[in-house]
Amino acid sequence: MTGQRPIRLGMVGGGNDAFIGAVHRIAARIDGEYSLIAGALSSTPEKARASGAALGLDPGRTYDDFETMAVLEAARDDGIEAVAIVTPNHMHAPAARAFLKQGINVICDKPLTATLKDAQELVKTAEASDALFILTHNYTGYPMVRQARDMITSGLLGDIRVVQAEYPQDWLTEAEEVNENKQAEWRTDPARSGAGGCVGDIGTHAFNLLSFMTGLETESLSADLQSFVPGRRLDDNAHVMLRFKGGARGMLWSSQVAPGNENALKIRIYGSKGGIEWAQEDPNYLWHTPFGEAKRLLTRGGAGASQTAARLTRTPGGHPEGYLEAFANLYTEAAEAIRARYTGAVLSPDVHFPTVLDGLAGVQFIDACVKSSRENAAWVSI
Amino acid sequence: MTGQRPIRLGMVGGGNDAFIGAVHRIAARIDGEYSLIAGALSSTPEKARASGAALGLDPGRTYDDFETMAVLEAARDDGIEAVAIVTPNHMHAPAARAFLKQGINVICDKPLTATLKDAQELVKTAEASDALFILTHNYTGYPMVRQARDMITSGLLGDIRVVQAEYPQDWLTEAEEVNENKQAEWRTDPARSGAGGCVGDIGTHAFNLLSFMTGLETESLSADLQSFVPGRRLDDNAHVMLRFKGGARGMLWSSQVAPGNENALKIRIYGSKGGIEWAQEDPNYLWHTPFGEAKRLLTRGGAGASQTAARLTRTPGGHPEGYLEAFANLYTEAAEAIRARYTGAVLSPDVHFPTVLDGLAGVQFIDACVKSSRENAAWVSI
Amino acid sequence: MTGQRPIRLGMVGGGNDAFIGAVHRIAARIDGEYSLIAGALSSTPEKARASGAALGLDPGRTYDDFETMAVLEAARDDGIEAVAIVTPNHMHAPAARAFLKQGINVICDKPLTATLKDAQELVKTAEASDALFILTHNYTGYPMVRQARDMITSGLLGDIRVVQAEYPQDWLTEAEEVNENKQAEWRTDPARSGAGGCVGDIGTHAFNLLSFMTGLETESLSADLQSFVPGRRLDDNAHVMLRFKGGARGMLWSSQVAPGNENALKIRIYGSKGGIEWAQEDPNYLWHTPFGEAKRLLTRGGAGASQTAARLTRTPGGHPEGYLEAFANLYTEAAEAIRARYTGAVLSPDVHFPTVLDGLAGVQFIDACVKSSRENAAWVSI
Amino acid sequence: MTGQRPIRLGMVGGGNDAFIGAVHRIAARIDGEYSLIAGALSSTPEKARASGAALGLDPGRTYDDFETMAVLEAARDDGIEAVAIVTPNHMHAPAARAFLKQGINVICDKPLTATLKDAQELVKTAEASDALFILTHNYTGYPMVRQARDMITSGLLGDIRVVQAEYPQDWLTEAEEVNENKQAEWRTDPARSGAGGCVGDIGTHAFNLLSFMTGLETESLSADLQSFVPGRRLDDNAHVMLRFKGGARGMLWSSQVAPGNENALKIRIYGSKGGIEWAQEDPNYLWHTPFGEAKRLLTRGGAGASQTAARLTRTPGGHPEGYLEAFANLYTEAAEAIRARYTGAVLSPDVHFPTVLDGLAGVQFIDACVKSSRENAAWVSI
Repeated sequence: MTGQRPIRLGMVGGGNDAFIGAVHRIAARIDGEYSLIAGALSSTPEKARASGAALGLDPGRTYDDFETMAVLEAARDDGIEAVAIVTPNHMHAPAARAFLKQGINVICDKPLTATLKDAQELVKTAEASDALFILTHNYTGYPMVRQARDMITSGLLGDIRVVQAEYPQDWLTEAEEVNENKQAEWRTDPARSGAGGCVGDIGTHAFNLLSFMTGLETESLSADLQSFVPGRRLDDNAHVMLRFKGGARGMLWSSQVAPGNENALKIRIYGSKGGIEWAQEDPNYLWHTPFGEAKRLLTRGGAGASQTAARLTRTPGGHPEGYLEAFANLYTEAAEAIRARYTGAVLSPDVHFPTVLDGLAGVQFIDACVKSSRENAAWVSI
Repeated sequence: MTGQRPIRLGMVGGGNDAFIGAVHRIAARIDGEYSLIAGALSSTPEKARASGAALGLDPGRTYDDFETMAVLEAARDDGIEAVAIVTPNHMHAPAARAFLKQGINVICDKPLTATLKDAQELVKTAEASDALFILTHNYTGYPMVRQARDMITSGLLGDIRVVQAEYPQDWLTEAEEVNENKQAEWRTDPARSGAGGCVGDIGTHAFNLLSFMTGLETESLSADLQSFVPGRRLDDNAHVMLRFKGGARGMLWSSQVAPGNENALKIRIYGSKGGIEWAQEDPNYLWHTPFGEAKRLLTRGGAGASQTAARLTRTPGGHPEGYLEAFANLYTEAAEAIRARYTGAVLSPDVHFPTVLDGLAGVQFIDACVKSSRENAAWVSI
Repeated sequence: MTGQRPIRLGMVGGGNDAFIGAVHRIAARIDGEYSLIAGALSSTPEKARASGAALGLDPGRTYDDFETMAVLEAARDDGIEAVAIVTPNHMHAPAARAFLKQGINVICDKPLTATLKDAQELVKTAEASDALFILTHNYTGYPMVRQARDMITSGLLGDIRVVQAEYPQDWLTEAEEVNENKQAEWRTDPARSGAGGCVGDIGTHAFNLLSFMTGLETESLSADLQSFVPGRRLDDNAHVMLRFKGGARGMLWSSQVAPGNENALKIRIYGSKGGIEWAQEDPNYLWHTPFGEAKRLLTRGGAGASQTAARLTRTPGGHPEGYLEAFANLYTEAAEAIRARYTGAVLSPDVHFPTVLDGLAGVQFIDACVKSSRENAAWVSI
Repeated sequence: MTGQRPIRLGMVGGGNDAFIGAVHRIAARIDGEYSLIAGALSSTPEKARASGAALGLDPGRTYDDFETMAVLEAARDDGIEAVAIVTPNHMHAPAARAFLKQGINVICDKPLTATLKDAQELVKTAEASDALFILTHNYTGYPMVRQARDMITSGLLGDIRVVQAEYPQDWLTEAEEVNENKQAEWRTDPARSGAGGCVGDIGTHAFNLLSFMTGLETESLSADLQSFVPGRRLDDNAHVMLRFKGGARGMLWSSQVAPGNENALKIRIYGSKGGIEWAQEDPNYLWHTPFGEAKRLLTRGGAGASQTAARLTRTPGGHPEGYLEAFANLYTEAAEAIRARYTGAVLSPDVHFPTVLDGLAGVQFIDACVKSSRENAAWVSI
């Protein structure tokens, strides 16, 4: 908290029983950089109003739809400066466009859009706008992820050869979508999620994270997607082989039918001089394994932590930070960028929130996986 | 966040370079239940004002001393409803008294006071006041600690026999207090910390936590305190044996000279039917070991989590929460109690923040440890 | 140790500086079921004789070549009853044939042979012989692997959907084969290893283990093999996607260039009702994760251990057994089978040592991986 | 296995259903250094004979009592050169004396004796004999324990300040001794175990190990022993505080009523420059935590392993060794010493098996714990 006036924030989606809306609100609050003052919190007007009231919003700034919200907020002197978009995937693009056109900065959940066409158009809109576009691929906000990225880009691991990414969950092991679980419903519905199921919901996180950490560009991929639960319309397990420019190779596994895995995103990266390993469920640790030396366990805030990690840390080593703090790191970096937009300040080179281009890369990844799988796991270029 | 108006909060101590002040401020923000609007942030007026400005406080409510703050805030219609006291230990008692006398609710860091006499007097003041007194023995705010407590009080472990508590750190392995480290300076200064060094700073956390989790009352203890670093005036390592009413026995180890330990608070409890194990650095996990059955790893938000744990949880299993969220849980329970004070609402029986009596027990523990150690580890009753 | 006369054992290969020969000898000794009395321990006669002397063998039974050994031992009344073949891969087939033809039981290291043609012929020879053929895919000898297999075949995990197998090592991260490291030399030499490098040396272990544990038959695979170290002639990293009969899918990763991994074979298996996870480096543990219940950590010899695991266990829970004991379990099961051959006793249905057919499956796996990789990871049927 | 003739070994105790007898026999076999040829395997003659037959011993060398065995074996040209004594504690002294008097080397299980008086006399007998006395405090045989010892004695951790030793088990959580469990019966019987229960059975292991690893001499201790299970005659839980010469302090906890703990011996040692941590159930790992640097995980056979560890290792890193291999290391060191006795060879300075003096120290430790506990945990000098 810097003592500066909090940024005026609005929200689209994130009504009462939405998981990710609550996460965005906490993330916005943790460092005191935002004040939530407006919302179009549901596509159902009654629910939108009830959710606004539950959050203590001014009823006059609780909107029934995001188009109205974008226009009216842009017209106010005290209108919102940023909007968080936390709807199902298919609504990201129209909502984002509405605010970008009004010059309002957008903080949007992932994946960027439900279709590649939407993603490509949204990139154009974002690039044509002065407003900022921040994509909450939140796992890039973890301090030890940033430290790993620094280690790799500085050459500490040598030439990267092999990347192993995995993101298993188990919550869709049974047909949860028929049990009135709204989270499961829209995530298994092609109309709202897009053509990717678990590969879009979480595979794209793993892909974003490995790209962010290694800096590698993906050349092509071969994917084998499955829907194991009878009646499910989208994939619930994805096996992907990756080829990167420069010769590195990778594997990526995402699953929502792997009992015992809650949110087990894990990245392992091996180069000619050493390896690293990071697991989201135990995010304060980072293994560094220089070849031929003893293994080292680096800890957030501990003796082996870098300046990069320290910048995104609120507590000393041994005081664990988690998912919400990592999410808040993106919000706080976004705040720094939003303020810099208005003041003209130069942004620190350490600020690394994902952008609309990272979002496009994610949708391209989903699209390529679906295409490859339909073609019997043929290699598809990205 | 419930949509209710945030509670107006002030702070005493917690100026620019204080670790715990920043922690309290984040904890107060996470669930949106408080708004920080006033402060006496340092005993040095210039620093107090600079710290207030850095936090964006109204200069008119940035006070040079806490007595003035208590009087003036109590006189305002929009005065603070609660104050967070985050000074060095020896100032807890006078500051708390100043606000309690004005009927302002107090949220106070631990240990309660620097001396047993101060603690006993503060208990009287608190009991004579309508205002609430919440002690931030923050580790009791972890969801899996609450779940463990429920498991034990429900008899799942049978009769408790053995308690092993430990809280090692390493940051005072060398004479950090001579390096202008303010955290180290006051924590090794009897005038500001009281007679206990590491036993007061962290041993008291371990003692509080084992008492909270088991419900056991300590009958007597035998303590062997050491100051290993030359020139240090307070203990930096404490070995304690415990005898509980009803026959259970325990050991408690706290240290600030154990290299490799950052903040390694850990509690293990064994009964006639099973055991549990919880470690603060990996707080989303709880081992339950029913005798004669396979070991079970319970996870916050996971399949084995209880309702009690769920009540204090913001994210699903596998999305790790940490130190700040646990701290926020106490703040949010305090908010519920503060609101209940004004509305007369009945407080949920699940609300379990530590009180001034827990604070007194902690100071009695410190006092008994120091006394026992001076008498060659004789048994001292509590 | 049963009090019966030890089986008379010979050895081919395994001279002074061979790793795996020493392992076989210890495995044969642990339960006292064998007595090593003859050997052709090296293809270099001087080394063969020196190695025999170092092992205390009778010089009259230290042979210069395995053909002579097979003939002369078969002619003795006190000739060997079994031979352990621990040469480089390309010599397995001729050595095994020599002993099988004499009716001497063969205990052979893996992979079965260096070529598919050799493997197919060896199967015929073995099937035509009364002698037993035991292949030391030693990881199947671990008690918790057997327990996992029982759990799966009994249906505890429901229908198997996903198998994740991995076997990373790091010892070939650099060009160790040019440093006069004999282990590295022959393992990277197509003439002695066959067409598979790491996929043959260790990938085949992972494949054998997943097949053994799940009982799944592989339908086809898609493999992407790499040689990362300049000048290396065989693969040192292998990415494989698997399709099983019945619809399950799998991934298999083996690598010898993954710094920080010593011998990190790990198998994870997920079905419609639960999952299991087992890691070779911590072999006394087995995770069982029934869907919707708390995770369970089963331990060898502990409360959750099965009768199957107990049968292969020498010490109580908490007294760790390791690689050599698992290896010894195969030797001891082999002893039971060898004795049953002579006595006509019925073998326990719990005896599960790998056979020549498992060896053939392994060589087919290697062959398919190499073929698929040459065809740009096309799907190859097995 | 060195190619030398195996040492002729006898055994006293260790009949059919004895756990530790089987362990000694495997330990003697692993490296091929011993041949078991004689025994007085039970104090019940029928059982002694049946056990001998089951082990394949010559009936003529299966004795009904150890006195006869000592005399007759000593008289043979091919008599045993060493005897393993694996009886209940109270028989160690008379059996050991019988063989020492005949000049036969003794390998004796721990604790040395059931009483301090017996221990002192046995020291005299052993010192008066040419024969060797090896005490199987087997945990000192683990390679990473040896490496830790080297690290400490070389000063890598600086001055040792704090030692935390613990050895919890759970198998006596209920009154197992009334269930015809012979292991439980004699271990809870003062007449056969001596005055210490769990403190003698396992606490003495922890004490031996911490003494071995640190080289510290214990000055005094304060112990609080409990018998939690109704009707139990010996302690089943022990809390001990330790003071070492030179100022270091320690805690030791041993328990047999701690559900979830199988054989969880763990030692943590902290000095002015760093710490180490080793756990018996995961013995291939050793944490080294130099102060102010990243934590390091050393592995047996891995990049951080020392020569000392390598000397006692049979397999490369990642191929786990366990309890039996550590036990075998003592047997193999004993073999080296026994051979040196006859040949006059100079023993390597790396040979470190425990001796009768370590055994005396262990019995003194038990005695002091019992005495201290009876005096309300008064400090007792050793």
